[in-house]
Amino acid sequence: MILLLKRNTEQQQIEHLMEWLKGLGLETHLVKGKFQTILGLIGDTTAVDIDLLNGLDIVEDVKRIQEPYKNANRKFHPDDTVVEIGDIKIGGGNFQVIAGPCSVESEEQLTGIAKSVKASGAGMLRGGAFKPRTSPYAFQGLRGEGLELLEKAKAATGLPIVTEIMDASHLPMFENVDVIQVGARNMQNFELLKRLGKVDKPILLKRGLSSTIQELLMSAEYILAGGNSNVILCERGIRTFETYTRNTLDISAVPVLKELTHLPVIIDPSHASGMARLVKPLSLAAVAAGADGLIIEVHNDPAHALCDGPQSLTPEAFDELMTQIRTLLPLIQAQK
Amino acid sequence: MILLLKRNTEQQQIEHLMEWLKGLGLETHLVKGKFQTILGLIGDTTAVDIDLLNGLDIVEDVKRIQEPYKNANRKFHPDDTVVEIGDIKIGGGNFQVIAGPCSVESEEQLTGIAKSVKASGAGMLRGGAFKPRTSPYAFQGLRGEGLELLEKAKAATGLPIVTEIMDASHLPMFENVDVIQVGARNMQNFELLKRLGKVDKPILLKRGLSSTIQELLMSAEYILAGGNSNVILCERGIRTFETYTRNTLDISAVPVLKELTHLPVIIDPSHASGMARLVKPLSLAAVAAGADGLIIEVHNDPAHALCDGPQSLTPEAFDELMTQIRTLLPLIQAQK
Amino acid sequence: MILLLKRNTEQQQIEHLMEWLKGLGLETHLVKGKFQTILGLIGDTTAVDIDLLNGLDIVEDVKRIQEPYKNANRKFHPDDTVVEIGDIKIGGGNFQVIAGPCSVESEEQLTGIAKSVKASGAGMLRGGAFKPRTSPYAFQGLRGEGLELLEKAKAATGLPIVTEIMDASHLPMFENVDVIQVGARNMQNFELLKRLGKVDKPILLKRGLSSTIQELLMSAEYILAGGNSNVILCERGIRTFETYTRNTLDISAVPVLKELTHLPVIIDPSHASGMARLVKPLSLAAVAAGADGLIIEVHNDPAHALCDGPQSLTPEAFDELMTQIRTLLPLIQAQK
Amino acid sequence: MILLLKRNTEQQQIEHLMEWLKGLGLETHLVKGKFQTILGLIGDTTAVDIDLLNGLDIVEDVKRIQEPYKNANRKFHPDDTVVEIGDIKIGGGNFQVIAGPCSVESEEQLTGIAKSVKASGAGMLRGGAFKPRTSPYAFQGLRGEGLELLEKAKAATGLPIVTEIMDASHLPMFENVDVIQVGARNMQNFELLKRLGKVDKPILLKRGLSSTIQELLMSAEYILAGGNSNVILCERGIRTFETYTRNTLDISAVPVLKELTHLPVIIDPSHASGMARLVKPLSLAAVAAGADGLIIEVHNDPAHALCDGPQSLTPEAFDELMTQIRTLLPLIQAQK
Repeated sequence: MILLLKRNTEQQQIEHLMEWLKGLGLETHLVKGKFQTILGLIGDTTAVDIDLLNGLDIVEDVKRIQEPYKNANRKFHPDDTVVEIGDIKIGGGNFQVIAGPCSVESEEQLTGIAKSVKASGAGMLRGGAFKPRTSPYAFQGLRGEGLELLEKAKAATGLPIVTEIMDASHLPMFENVDVIQVGARNMQNFELLKRLGKVDKPILLKRGLSSTIQELLMSAEYILAGGNSNVILCERGIRTFETYTRNTLDISAVPVLKELTHLPVIIDPSHASGMARLVKPLSLAAVAAGADGLIIEVHNDPAHALCDGPQSLTPEAFDELMTQIRTLLPLIQAQK
Repeated sequence: MILLLKRNTEQQQIEHLMEWLKGLGLETHLVKGKFQTILGLIGDTTAVDIDLLNGLDIVEDVKRIQEPYKNANRKFHPDDTVVEIGDIKIGGGNFQVIAGPCSVESEEQLTGIAKSVKASGAGMLRGGAFKPRTSPYAFQGLRGEGLELLEKAKAATGLPIVTEIMDASHLPMFENVDVIQVGARNMQNFELLKRLGKVDKPILLKRGLSSTIQELLMSAEYILAGGNSNVILCERGIRTFETYTRNTLDISAVPVLKELTHLPVIIDPSHASGMARLVKPLSLAAVAAGADGLIIEVHNDPAHALCDGPQSLTPEAFDELMTQIRTLLPLIQAQK
Repeated sequence: MILLLKRNTEQQQIEHLMEWLKGLGLETHLVKGKFQTILGLIGDTTAVDIDLLNGLDIVEDVKRIQEPYKNANRKFHPDDTVVEIGDIKIGGGNFQVIAGPCSVESEEQLTGIAKSVKASGAGMLRGGAFKPRTSPYAFQGLRGEGLELLEKAKAATGLPIVTEIMDASHLPMFENVDVIQVGARNMQNFELLKRLGKVDKPILLKRGLSSTIQELLMSAEYILAGGNSNVILCERGIRTFETYTRNTLDISAVPVLKELTHLPVIIDPSHASGMARLVKPLSLAAVAAGADGLIIEVHNDPAHALCDGPQSLTPEAFDELMTQIRTLLPLIQAQK
Repeated sequence: MILLLKRNTEQQQIEHLMEWLKGLGLETHLVKGKFQTILGLIGDTTAVDIDLLNGLDIVEDVKRIQEPYKNANRKFHPDDTVVEIGDIKIGGGNFQVIAGPCSVESEEQLTGIAKSVKASGAGMLRGGAFKPRTSPYAFQGLRGEGLELLEKAKAATGLPIVTEIMDASHLPMFENVDVIQVGARNMQNFELLKRLGKVDKPILLKRGLSSTIQELLMSAEYILAGGNSNVILCERGIRTFETYTRNTLDISAVPVLKELTHLPVIIDPSHASGMARLVKPLSLAAVAAGADGLIIEVHNDPAHALCDGPQSLTPEAFDELMTQIRTLLPLIQAQK
């Protein structure tokens, strides 16, 4: 870490600062230039509060030399992490599609979709049991009952199940869940992240609506630092001024994350766009950009076809998309 | 709620939709115009999933006539809510300043600041015991010990204490806290909000970094719907493209919220700007815009003066600001 | 267009409004429902000021049934527009890559790059003669001299040339330019757009940094309404809170624009990301999402290799990318 | 300017870079630290392309020590600029309110409003003759005829007139305009800014919807560098994710700009919010935050009262606001 000090800083103030930094266990190097005084810090600066330093009267600017994440950093872990869920692998050249309904509604619905997406080539089943809803009056999910239905669908198909947790106190109910999802709104629920760092299950961590790529990596770092090294990152659209799509898919996040971290990176085109007809082009774009997987909403209840979620594919559309992905994928992977 | 249906929608589809809506307990009114078919819904539409309706093939657009929040809505509760914390009142013409350090560090620090801000006219003491930090390696607050120090400062000064909760499981430790703060990152931690709806303490709810005004009101609605009617809303800056300030204070949120809701609205100029020298102009602007209060960071540890947070006022600067607010306030209140 | 009127609106006010609307040449249809009064407008509503209507005291909301653009609207022009520049076609299944340096620097530089990108398969040559620069002290481009160098490069290679105009008064100098580019900062320079509507050359219209998709189409409409039907739209990244990349490429804009308009849509991965190493994944993503072309920065001056723009590809990297695009393109086009 | 070079950069590359920088007229200072090599640049770095340097392979980061604007910089011009328009002064403790209709519609309308706002205490008259409209089909303003009506209103009241220019070629028509306004959409129309740098009239420069504070200052610099030192800056709301208000007023821009520059800073609460009922609280907030003035929309045509712009005050509301401002202003100015 490098501190650029303001001109005219008094020697006494500089020494005061250096002593304080030494108290944090850091080695300091003072370089007085003709036009600028620079203070270099050596040691573990990950715990240093960069905002605090930036706010000091005598500091002009602070520049991190190293990213503030260690465990998630590709510099220190050059090889791709491969997350294994039973026989299913994701990352390191292993591409996976997670598919299923937005909400778990019934055994018939869920098992039907599970069989269908498995036949189309999905590697895991998604389905919301606990639903984060903006309104307290909206359906909050089947909760515990939804988890049981997911387990039944898993028993019927063999597909590992992925579902969202909303509070650490629910963890005991997630014993038979294969991958625990942290939703966008909880990406910086640090107490939850700490608890998931102690869990022996892969975590699917979704980027917050207005979280930077670095903040996503810092949240992954909370889980990794706790001892759980199986984290899958998911870009699901960010909040911008554009209102035509529900969110703006940040496709650049795929190559950027692949460069900065060794963790698998997947895309959620359903939530990013909020429109079923955009799922296909965005999925293909994600494959082309180098993503390790996709998480896609599929709904198949013909009796309520009228009420299909706006962002859900029909099983037929999903099947067609999977065929296209299978054609595209080897071509992209060959070009790396 | 009004649904504009697409042209060429078949009668059968419309009837299918109407039946489904009736199943939700809603009365429907079909108006077939020359150029557009409109379906009006009467009843409690707060639980209706507007995204789902919008996504239906036959729906062109959905228009809510009523806001989706009821308990927080000024239309149904025209009088200002006055939140009372002991003798301290906020809202309904009662202006309060909450002041104190970013983090609780020691008894000496906290009680010193508490005495000082009380002398300057602050009505409540703030101080972080549990600290949400982007990095897992950064200081996470004194946690339980910090809460004890807050209680000691309260005992020494009589100032009610305001501090942030990060997880519902910590609630038992908050027994002696006067106002429980929900931080910006937890504004949509719905499980936490539900729990706070059952608590018999005022809640200070901060707007999320990228949450709309309506989303803030919906989060307040979670607490109110649970039975806790003492919610104080806090605008603390939103995330925009501008990087000069840490966040962009949305000053318009003050008059907008005062119009939409009866709940008290306060401003946090310290976090909004991230710069102590902007706290004064932003505080005065908040008063002029009609805010019911302010929450301001004040730090007074002379031994570590070097490390004062960049956004914290000194006790002297805070005292001067309080004098200015006292001059300005009656003038603004007289103009309402 | 539909106006939802507020409850309790007096009959006299409604009649006043209807008369005023008739004065604008619109037919009005009043539908008084049990709970809402609706006023439908028939006729050419493109000139109606929706903000003005929204602001009327008696209006609850205004809903456009038709998009406010006509000439650019796919509903009225279902077939893809194919823009022809000599033998080069773009749109309607014709994919083109426009390549060249950020700034025109010298004849040697430009002609060298032109030959190189032509050999790799580029269909047009780009190069900035007039450069929009944030700082008045930065290099403003070779201006007229730059245009001459572009003409020489065209003569040497046969590649049509694409270059940016910054002021309508420069138009006479653009006589030999094949495609006139309107930069992101001028997307809403309406006087310039009007002038370009009278020009007999294709226009490459870049989306503004914070312009919505609809605003981009409205700016295209300015050109089309003037009589110039050859407009190519270009998504080049929008401004968001994310700072890792220079802008955020809105990849969803490709399928959205292809749905809303018949005009060709291309992507500028160089400006969107600001990083050469992201150009390849974003280019492939653009192809996969269905774009009609790309505009890519290529630089080849070995003597100044040190100063290659951060977002420019070397000719070698560009050649490799073109090979990958040629492999990917037929696969994507076959899937439509 | 300071360049942090990457580790492992070869000596030859560093020398290559230093030679190139010397070619730009800069003095270089190399500081090789234990862990980082730093290259300091002395000289006029305003013309250096920071993006280009950032993109060099061997450069880790670039840090400007000096702001890239000189003429607009308070460091070099500590005293407030006072812009004089006849007897009217703005800046340096002189507060002015510019008021008038959004669009000039008729002599009767404009002169009526002009007399009214003058009586209420406005110092200048605003009114749009050339109107930037998103739609080519919307009313584009009375243009030349509108300018004539503004001159008549000036003759009738003595109020200096402020109106927007949309293209440099219209300048001859602006001979009798007192203050030329550059709209938000043209803030980075650099060719126009250059022309206005040669004009002997004050320029009212509005911040672009998605322009940073630094970009606003760089656009001012274009005008100042051309020799025109009379620039008034105007914050008029930025584009964010919040849709309740038309834009988000960045109130922090007032104290930030007052710190960074000596130019007068005014606020446009009408365009920032798009709602007449927010104009009062935002105007008072602007005064409290230290603004040098306001520009406010006022409309008074009783015959078309129905069609008052949603963001325009009535003359009565404006008069009341002016009274409040006159009470507030001395109190705020006394506190500086």
